[in-house]
Amino acid sequence: MRLEDFKVEQWMNENEGDAKYNLTDTCLSSFSFQELMAMKEEDLSGLVLDYGEIQGSTRFRQEVLSLYTTGTVDSITTANGCLEANILVMETLLEKDDHVITCVPGYQQFVSYPKSLGCKVTTIELEFEHQWKPDIESFKQAITQQTRLIILNNPNNPTGTQYTESFLEELIKICSPKGIYILCDEVYRDPRKIQSISDLYDKGISTSSLSKLYGLAGLRLGWVKGPVDLISRINSRRDYVMISTGPLIDALGTIALKHKEEILERADAILCANKSYLKQWLASNPQFACVIPENGTVSFLRINGMKDSASLAQKLLNEEGIFFVPGACFDHEGYMRLGLGQDPQNFKEGLERLAKILKSEK
Amino acid sequence: MRLEDFKVEQWMNENEGDAKYNLTDTCLSSFSFQELMAMKEEDLSGLVLDYGEIQGSTRFRQEVLSLYTTGTVDSITTANGCLEANILVMETLLEKDDHVITCVPGYQQFVSYPKSLGCKVTTIELEFEHQWKPDIESFKQAITQQTRLIILNNPNNPTGTQYTESFLEELIKICSPKGIYILCDEVYRDPRKIQSISDLYDKGISTSSLSKLYGLAGLRLGWVKGPVDLISRINSRRDYVMISTGPLIDALGTIALKHKEEILERADAILCANKSYLKQWLASNPQFACVIPENGTVSFLRINGMKDSASLAQKLLNEEGIFFVPGACFDHEGYMRLGLGQDPQNFKEGLERLAKILKSEK
Repeated sequence: MRLEDFKVEQWMNENEGDAKYNLTDTCLSSFSFQELMAMKEEDLSGLVLDYGEIQGSTRFRQEVLSLYTTGTVDSITTANGCLEANILVMETLLEKDDHVITCVPGYQQFVSYPKSLGCKVTTIELEFEHQWKPDIESFKQAITQQTRLIILNNPNNPTGTQYTESFLEELIKICSPKGIYILCDEVYRDPRKIQSISDLYDKGISTSSLSKLYGLAGLRLGWVKGPVDLISRINSRRDYVMISTGPLIDALGTIALKHKEEILERADAILCANKSYLKQWLASNPQFACVIPENGTVSFLRINGMKDSASLAQKLLNEEGIFFVPGACFDHEGYMRLGLGQDPQNFKEGLERLAKILKSEK
Repeated sequence: MRLEDFKVEQWMNENEGDAKYNLTDTCLSSFSFQELMAMKEEDLSGLVLDYGEIQGSTRFRQEVLSLYTTGTVDSITTANGCLEANILVMETLLEKDDHVITCVPGYQQFVSYPKSLGCKVTTIELEFEHQWKPDIESFKQAITQQTRLIILNNPNNPTGTQYTESFLEELIKICSPKGIYILCDEVYRDPRKIQSISDLYDKGISTSSLSKLYGLAGLRLGWVKGPVDLISRINSRRDYVMISTGPLIDALGTIALKHKEEILERADAILCANKSYLKQWLASNPQFACVIPENGTVSFLRINGMKDSASLAQKLLNEEGIFFVPGACFDHEGYMRLGLGQDPQNFKEGLERLAKILKSEK
């Protein structure tokens, strides 16, 4: 199956290692193995390293369920990260010639992967001039008789767009009579602050993981929450592509979710500090502009006068150790993806350095 | 994408938990987390749980490389188990209408998955009457202008068939001029005893994992070894479906492979004890017949007079706690899959019990 190169991921893979100031990562700064193990309340040493419970342990799925307001453990199945959760949903739901709608700039997986399955994909443009807010009319116009699935990223990488409950309710009103599924990649969703599509719509599917707000990308532990009949079909596909996530990762994920409150409070503190500094920094550096998102860990930083984001990103990395994913990786010139979840001191220093360099180059 | 139910895996998922005598598992009895951690020579506590090295750490890939006689670390990429390694290879190599050849009874993934991608699949029958040995003529006859890939499982689940080096050399002679790739799922291969297809053929692809001989299925850590250009294409696909296996699993896998000699010697001891008892048991129980494989962890046990393997397997499990995957799951009546890697005392008791029950039912 032909598949385009995944620009953001390739850029990350090739360049991330050299960063002194990682201003683009979408994760909260990662926990160490020791820090995670320090949270555990029971002994893992006797854990047998067999396949474990195939769809994820009941305990883990119960912890996941606590992030939602509806459903049962049968509404949930696990995956190796939110990325694989999305693939499982797309491969299970989509057939050749189905029509898919998603927003850009966004996560390329939602465009390129359905295309590789032979689907037609309509992209709806989010615009800086409208604070990256979605327009329900664009969705109405994009829907066809063949529309099978709408894919949103809530909040959206890289724009930080949040699909509000009222927007989602409007969208559901349109989709429901036509039987259109809505997949929301909710990997940046804070369950205390944003409603899940899976709690709002009977054809709503939520995917997520411990990678972003939880700072545990290294566990590669994600999940799908959705209609029980769809989860059951996904479980059949899982037998071919993964079997299980394994009991160790499952147990470590359970520990993390048992401590979700303190982990999310840590995220709050980091994001709040970085957004607060960003606001102040933008005010004193008018060359830059950015819609600071209410939630999520990413934003799309506009740099006035920048023509070639990839060249500048490469130069900033090579000469200053400042790491950005350029807008070019999102087919959107004029921007850099700005991550908001890394160490506040490093974030501040990185932005200060960036402003200084670009000023001196003028 | 439509996909048939995976019969073996579904049977395992639904029934495995109730087994007192698991006579069907294809893994060596699993290590515990504690046993694995006891092997480590360095401190993992500072390990940061970010995505880690995307294609697997150089250290881990060097350890994998030690299982082969050719290649570099760039010939290797990691996956979540051998199962996902196979999917990565098939999805990268195959297009709609390509022709695939594989053997049955075998692992259903190699038939159903290519079909779901729109490929034509020819299955070659292995026969008990020929000690499950492959016949090169069948391959010659099956190859067409559209043949893109031959998929073997070496040794084969469930028959224990070993594709010898001389057989593989003959097959390569046929495939090479036509540019046909050979994928060998070598998850049951002992690197000390069996040659890898990837060391014999420039279009040979080896997949494997730590699940079977290494007794570490719970790590879900597999890999692909193959031509560097193919590995590079697989790495592009990995960006969409998994990113990485994560650094913790990678580090634990490195520990396991650093201790491969003692782990494989443990496997030798268990397999030798079980095969030795099996031989003796077959001699005194002529109702059963089995080609005891030289290598691998599985065999296909013939039960004379058995009409309905699924019913008998269900009855044996419910009434006696004896767990088999029935031949029906391989579309092959008259057999049960017999695993050779579990605890020898339990294996012996299970077979004794089985013989007694079936005798009393006559």
